[in-house]
Amino acid sequence: MTDLAVTLGLRLPVFLAPMAGDAARPELVAAVCDAGGLGQLGGGYLAPEALRAAIHAIRRLTPRPFGVNLFVPESSAAQPQRVDSFRQVLATYYAAFGLVPPEPPAVQEISFEQQVAVVIEERVPVFSFTFGIPSKALLKSLQGAGIFTMGTATSPAEAKALQAAGVDAVVAQGWEAGGHRGGFLEPADAGMLGTMALVPQVVDAVSVPVVAAGGIADRRSVRAALALGASAVAAGTAFLATDEAGLSPAYRAALRGPRAGSTRLTRVFSGKLARGVPNRFMDEVERRADAVPPYPVTHHLTRPLRAEAARRSDADYLSLWAGQCAPLARTGSARDVLRELAAGVATRA
Amino acid sequence: MTDLAVTLGLRLPVFLAPMAGDAARPELVAAVCDAGGLGQLGGGYLAPEALRAAIHAIRRLTPRPFGVNLFVPESSAAQPQRVDSFRQVLATYYAAFGLVPPEPPAVQEISFEQQVAVVIEERVPVFSFTFGIPSKALLKSLQGAGIFTMGTATSPAEAKALQAAGVDAVVAQGWEAGGHRGGFLEPADAGMLGTMALVPQVVDAVSVPVVAAGGIADRRSVRAALALGASAVAAGTAFLATDEAGLSPAYRAALRGPRAGSTRLTRVFSGKLARGVPNRFMDEVERRADAVPPYPVTHHLTRPLRAEAARRSDADYLSLWAGQCAPLARTGSARDVLRELAAGVATRA
Repeated sequence: MTDLAVTLGLRLPVFLAPMAGDAARPELVAAVCDAGGLGQLGGGYLAPEALRAAIHAIRRLTPRPFGVNLFVPESSAAQPQRVDSFRQVLATYYAAFGLVPPEPPAVQEISFEQQVAVVIEERVPVFSFTFGIPSKALLKSLQGAGIFTMGTATSPAEAKALQAAGVDAVVAQGWEAGGHRGGFLEPADAGMLGTMALVPQVVDAVSVPVVAAGGIADRRSVRAALALGASAVAAGTAFLATDEAGLSPAYRAALRGPRAGSTRLTRVFSGKLARGVPNRFMDEVERRADAVPPYPVTHHLTRPLRAEAARRSDADYLSLWAGQCAPLARTGSARDVLRELAAGVATRA
Repeated sequence: MTDLAVTLGLRLPVFLAPMAGDAARPELVAAVCDAGGLGQLGGGYLAPEALRAAIHAIRRLTPRPFGVNLFVPESSAAQPQRVDSFRQVLATYYAAFGLVPPEPPAVQEISFEQQVAVVIEERVPVFSFTFGIPSKALLKSLQGAGIFTMGTATSPAEAKALQAAGVDAVVAQGWEAGGHRGGFLEPADAGMLGTMALVPQVVDAVSVPVVAAGGIADRRSVRAALALGASAVAAGTAFLATDEAGLSPAYRAALRGPRAGSTRLTRVFSGKLARGVPNRFMDEVERRADAVPPYPVTHHLTRPLRAEAARRSDADYLSLWAGQCAPLARTGSARDVLRELAAGVATRA
């Protein structure tokens, strides 16, 4: 057991990595909490009232502490010309589904401040965030409400910036991690430290507890992450194929498919680097990488396409987020996966 | 202690990762052997008689077992047009040193078969190789001479291919590793598994012992690698700044410099992906990436430039190979570094 787990009232220092979208739905979050870990809701894409509803759903399923993760907004404006150009690239794909690409959103659709207000009103036990650092005032409000705060770092420099802002813990997200990279300081493709190199350097850089993320697949990697100095681990991909995860059959099949071991970072789905199982959309649109606008415009421009692909269970056009340990992801219950991960803790105690 | 270390007659399951060039000269190899680990000579660029001389030098310095690493040759022919184009890119840099770019070598300069013959004649205890798999006949000759053979894998598929060829152990080289990637099966930029994700997948894929490489910096990462299922670790960068390493002052300074934490893979020095501390040559020539011919032509075309830069101690044009744990590399003796790494073993026994 680790001090961090004790602080958070957990039986195990194992977190469900937040996964925005359907994967980490309340059922999975609650199952991880019930089994002694920290379930986390990836709430980045949820409007305030949908976020509140998901929090209530988790609370109906478990009395245990849980976390909510949100995206710190960025001010990267897309050039209109580039948006038009990318909409033309997408038009072929939309046409195949009998659809037209959406107009880019005129304003930021979801207010981060309103999302955070829900987290505070609901007294969510743990608030984690990615893509940046909230204002000091916002962090103080969260902590004033008794909420434990965690920021995501992909480099020692980002970890130091998070500590300086006053977070209670830092998530060190290694190169292996699935989904979006949470970095914010450097160019997103600088550094790219693997978990083995990142965690010790972050542990040395800050005095707050460090949570290791990226490549956490089973008892072996949990044991390894704790040996590196982490106070807890965050595993996402390891839970993706569980019964409780809200994955489409096509996505589940891709996790067992021939390309599951060849995940790579791509910008084509959201405009921001994220790791997933390669598919036709990635292969083809990456050739037009110059045309991809920044996040979050691209996310909005591809969203209806991904939604339709999910409806049709067509893996060619889904964002199949997964980490480098995808081939090690087990089916079965979240409880069983947590038990496997936790076996790496017990032998250490 | 691990079975592999016992098999090899070592006191510690810690290997010096082979580093071609001046870094891992006989003094460093022998110092690691004397301290109980396995020193390895990176002999890839040495002509047969120079290789023999280096082996004799190691033997004069230590009675302990050691290893020699060689490059399995590839048959990637460079298009003459591309070579001309790259020579034009290089001309500016050579001109600044008052030199002209060399002609590309007409034939493979060094014979792999002759290098291996030296390894066999000299009864080198451990033979490791990268960039491919030697013929079964060659492997049989090596093993017939009582030589322990190790191949380098960057993916589970490569590990399986090596085991099928009959190697005695597999080195699993993760994304974090400095210097050249040893992969051969897939496109060199496919997979790119971090050590945390790679080692367990390789351990599951083969039955021979696995040596973890990439991000091995201190007792923490050694402990972590063994937890992942490795039978030993290979550390290169961790020894780079030691007294015994044959590094130029400019290279040493770069390891402590502001970009040491931002190593990246590049093809500009050799034509093959290798990780190093970024410098001016990397920054500038990577913009002309299309013009870089394959390995080994590029290695030959840039060699006199790098040699002159080393002579002038000008880090702008040196290949500053280093892994992602470069900021953790310690100065002092190789024995002290080995003692630090070995502290990760003792607590496990």
